[in-house]
Amino acid sequence: MSGFVSLVGAGPGDPELLTVRAVDRLRRADLVFYDALVEEELLALAPQAKRFFVGKRAGRHSIAQDGIHRLMVRAAQRGERVVRLKCGDPFVLGRGGEEALALEAAGVAYEVVPGLSSAIAAPALAGIPVTHRGLAAGFAVLSGHAESSYAPAIASLAPGSLTIVVLMGLRARGDIAQALIARGWAATTPAAVVLGASHEGSTRWVGTIGSLASAPVDSELAGIIVVGEVVSLATTIANEHDVLATSAVRLS
Amino acid sequence: MSGFVSLVGAGPGDPELLTVRAVDRLRRADLVFYDALVEEELLALAPQAKRFFVGKRAGRHSIAQDGIHRLMVRAAQRGERVVRLKCGDPFVLGRGGEEALALEAAGVAYEVVPGLSSAIAAPALAGIPVTHRGLAAGFAVLSGHAESSYAPAIASLAPGSLTIVVLMGLRARGDIAQALIARGWAATTPAAVVLGASHEGSTRWVGTIGSLASAPVDSELAGIIVVGEVVSLATTIANEHDVLATSAVRLS
Repeated sequence: MSGFVSLVGAGPGDPELLTVRAVDRLRRADLVFYDALVEEELLALAPQAKRFFVGKRAGRHSIAQDGIHRLMVRAAQRGERVVRLKCGDPFVLGRGGEEALALEAAGVAYEVVPGLSSAIAAPALAGIPVTHRGLAAGFAVLSGHAESSYAPAIASLAPGSLTIVVLMGLRARGDIAQALIARGWAATTPAAVVLGASHEGSTRWVGTIGSLASAPVDSELAGIIVVGEVVSLATTIANEHDVLATSAVRLS
Repeated sequence: MSGFVSLVGAGPGDPELLTVRAVDRLRRADLVFYDALVEEELLALAPQAKRFFVGKRAGRHSIAQDGIHRLMVRAAQRGERVVRLKCGDPFVLGRGGEEALALEAAGVAYEVVPGLSSAIAAPALAGIPVTHRGLAAGFAVLSGHAESSYAPAIASLAPGSLTIVVLMGLRARGDIAQALIARGWAATTPAAVVLGASHEGSTRWVGTIGSLASAPVDSELAGIIVVGEVVSLATTIANEHDVLATSAVRLS
């Protein structure tokens, strides 16, 4: 008897933004391994499952990546249906590839269930299309977690060419802004920070690269940075709060 | 009485990869405007709705973008619940921003329902993570539709820095490969083409930038190109066909 592991993208957080397949896998799960930022509302969709927190939590020891691999492999070998629930999309800066390789190496059957990446969905919910005719014909997604990842990426991108979306970059937003300006980006280029997209109380700051360092946002929160001319659309295109105000009436 | 427009991302095609919210909006819809590549299976989720094809079809006249805007606005003004169903995500190279601006200008209430972009989901379903520790710390998404969009984007990206995903680029794959090599990318860099991801009969070709031009794929199909070292994982990480072979047993 052998189990099965689903590496499932949880999307930005709102359960309505899960895929139908993700909901199905949660419903069938015996065991869910989940990260920080995955909320109770999502876990409630797996009522039969044991839950195991494997995320990082400020100030506490967290399970090492290979520990997560061992836990998943053992559970599958016991015959359990395992869901590994990861924020956003498993393959966008989420170490999902490493988890897939570990399952592969252990001979465990698994699948990847893509999820909405916050790189696209968070700007969209804040009224910012990552591409827009005449403003940006493409976009780049970078990790702001460490200078060793964002610095080479910024260096490799010509100023103004593509929309830049930075995940996990709030703490380094001053250094990221500086790196962009050093690379030749105009300090007046529009920039935005989106916090808690799809969650109640989500917020959005809109400014420029020059003012990004002093954006009044809590660096400890999860949020994304968007840089480029498309940010200028944010004040025109409806965001999720505008919609909330009308949709309750229009959709009921 | 006024209606409401939902700009809904249909994802890569499989109804199980719709979001829960997208399914809800289809179920309530009075009218669905849909593109080419949106299949009957998705439209069947809107049983009460009138359907209106507004996509491009080879050899036939298609409705101009502002014609689509007018149709949506009029329907909403008649009080209808309208779904504008767009492949992938509405804001990734899908002109969703223009549609949002047109609705805004007409004073019509609307929302954006993000969908899985093929830029991330199609590689994932083919066993290719767009980011992977040690191979790529980020990725760029470009349009291959016209030289005027992909040429500047390729010029702006340093060789080997990020995974590149090209949407709508099959017809130009030879020129895209040439532009990458001219920019300094090694001809031996892994490259893949993913066709029909999430559909039955999806296929994948894996080669290099140097062999991309002669990849034996039908240029008239919708497909995506992935370029970068992450493509080398495709032969190890399970793809949707591997999963099909095991999941029927494991998930029943």
